[in-house]
Amino acid sequence: MNAILIAVTGTSPEPWERRFRTLAPQRDLRVWPDRMGDVRDIAYACVWKPAPGVLARCPNLKAVLSVGAGVDHVFTDPDLPPVPVVRIVDADLTMRMGEYVVLHVLMHHRFQRLYDAQQRARVWREDRQPAASAVTVGIMGLGVLGRHAADLLRRIGFSVAGWSRTAKSLEGVATFHGADGLDGFLALTDILVCLLPSTPDTKGLIDLALLRKLKRNGALGGPFLINAGRGATQVEADILSALDDGTLAGATLDVFESEPLSDASPLWTHPKVTITPHNAAASVPSALVRNMLAQIERFEAGGPLQHVVDPRAGY
Amino acid sequence: MNAILIAVTGTSPEPWERRFRTLAPQRDLRVWPDRMGDVRDIAYACVWKPAPGVLARCPNLKAVLSVGAGVDHVFTDPDLPPVPVVRIVDADLTMRMGEYVVLHVLMHHRFQRLYDAQQRARVWREDRQPAASAVTVGIMGLGVLGRHAADLLRRIGFSVAGWSRTAKSLEGVATFHGADGLDGFLALTDILVCLLPSTPDTKGLIDLALLRKLKRNGALGGPFLINAGRGATQVEADILSALDDGTLAGATLDVFESEPLSDASPLWTHPKVTITPHNAAASVPSALVRNMLAQIERFEAGGPLQHVVDPRAGY
Repeated sequence: MNAILIAVTGTSPEPWERRFRTLAPQRDLRVWPDRMGDVRDIAYACVWKPAPGVLARCPNLKAVLSVGAGVDHVFTDPDLPPVPVVRIVDADLTMRMGEYVVLHVLMHHRFQRLYDAQQRARVWREDRQPAASAVTVGIMGLGVLGRHAADLLRRIGFSVAGWSRTAKSLEGVATFHGADGLDGFLALTDILVCLLPSTPDTKGLIDLALLRKLKRNGALGGPFLINAGRGATQVEADILSALDDGTLAGATLDVFESEPLSDASPLWTHPKVTITPHNAAASVPSALVRNMLAQIERFEAGGPLQHVVDPRAGY
Repeated sequence: MNAILIAVTGTSPEPWERRFRTLAPQRDLRVWPDRMGDVRDIAYACVWKPAPGVLARCPNLKAVLSVGAGVDHVFTDPDLPPVPVVRIVDADLTMRMGEYVVLHVLMHHRFQRLYDAQQRARVWREDRQPAASAVTVGIMGLGVLGRHAADLLRRIGFSVAGWSRTAKSLEGVATFHGADGLDGFLALTDILVCLLPSTPDTKGLIDLALLRKLKRNGALGGPFLINAGRGATQVEADILSALDDGTLAGATLDVFESEPLSDASPLWTHPKVTITPHNAAASVPSALVRNMLAQIERFEAGGPLQHVVDPRAGY
């Protein structure tokens, strides 16, 4: 009883299994698809994009733990049993996302792509360089990841604004919320950083109409987009239009409507686009298994699960 | 009397003059070479690479103020009069250098050049990604710029080490000093950030022998060099050798033995090199004239000049 199932697709279960066996050798561990054993024993499922129907086969399942920060990959299962789904919130993931956001904000702020092009042409020329304080980074999504990124960006010197679905307050950050707050937030924003989850509300939110509301003629000469949240929040055809008509000066995308990004996508070769393979905040077993075991042990000791997803909000 | 002279080469005096006239319209302002007037009136010289001998023509000079963080460009004048030379220490410069160091440390740490190459080849592949805490950034030069960069890098999650000529202590930073401390510092360092001034002691310090002492087989797979200090501290032929024989995995250079970097330099096209045109921390009149006026006004009120250079140390 109280077995833990590892059910992942698109990545190997092996490093997760190895880490669980190292940290909790006494636990009954099962691995989808070949080593599920008697499914009645399975109480917890640690999952990434689990195959639809797998979780419904476990009649005594008590909780589903996502090994990644997003949980949309769980809710796509039409047969998902009605048990708590928990997000992973871990300092390791939070710090990695902070690295990624700071790197790509600074690449835009410091015109790195211009200097790359100049280097190829052996051109020694110093362009204008606004101070970070003259630039506003607008962060969509003010959960743990967004708040950490906001804190780092403020320390570097940027002005920071934030938008979230529900009202939140952050020291030193101009916060906006809800549909009514969106236009005011966008009008302030030179560099838009999207860290939103994929939910029915966020689907296709980053479209041409939204991008046209970003600050025009700011200190950097044109707004930039960074999406390290979920690809479902963006309309890639609209991002391309915005880049081509000057609505956007550049974009860094870690996530896509369909992943891996298709060979045929014009994003790969667009001169204003930087592409990373959904690696902004990798889920690393060495860091995260400890976190999941702590959830399970706390729960078994009668405590609450932390970071339980609200199925209506989708995060 | 008490006139201020602006004496700059390689850059226009015009934005400096304009800013002085805006902030201190009552001051007697002179501009080299055409509008020096009666040189006996000149008490202060605000300089960037001043033409040799110009300062010696001012018999009543009381102080020389560098408009850039480095002062080596002042001491190259063989006829420099024996008056105090002051460095500029200003939050605007400090923050700009922080942006630059964080950007280029993260570009190496996050393997941005690998992902750039993969994008050109339409390759979707996630490489290993150590956490920042598994990587040590070693900063040479622990003045105001180095300490600010260390603080930002620590908050992002990096392990940080520091080396300086004389002993310094920084919270959370493993500090080393002097010739005896150098090898221990280098042995810890995955990403070396040089912020040293150009002095007789630092000339040619970053050579092949030094680079070979950096940490081998660290979490990032090979050490990286970032020089945003002064080009005279580096031996470019040695950096190229180190890149080609695997001693260095990559280098970001903002400064060079001779600037602008010659068209003929193989650094321009080396696949492991990122070049920026000495713009890590630009001296911007809108920010810095206020600082220089404050120095002059404090001095005239009987107070001390701040950040006076020790001519023997050279900074």
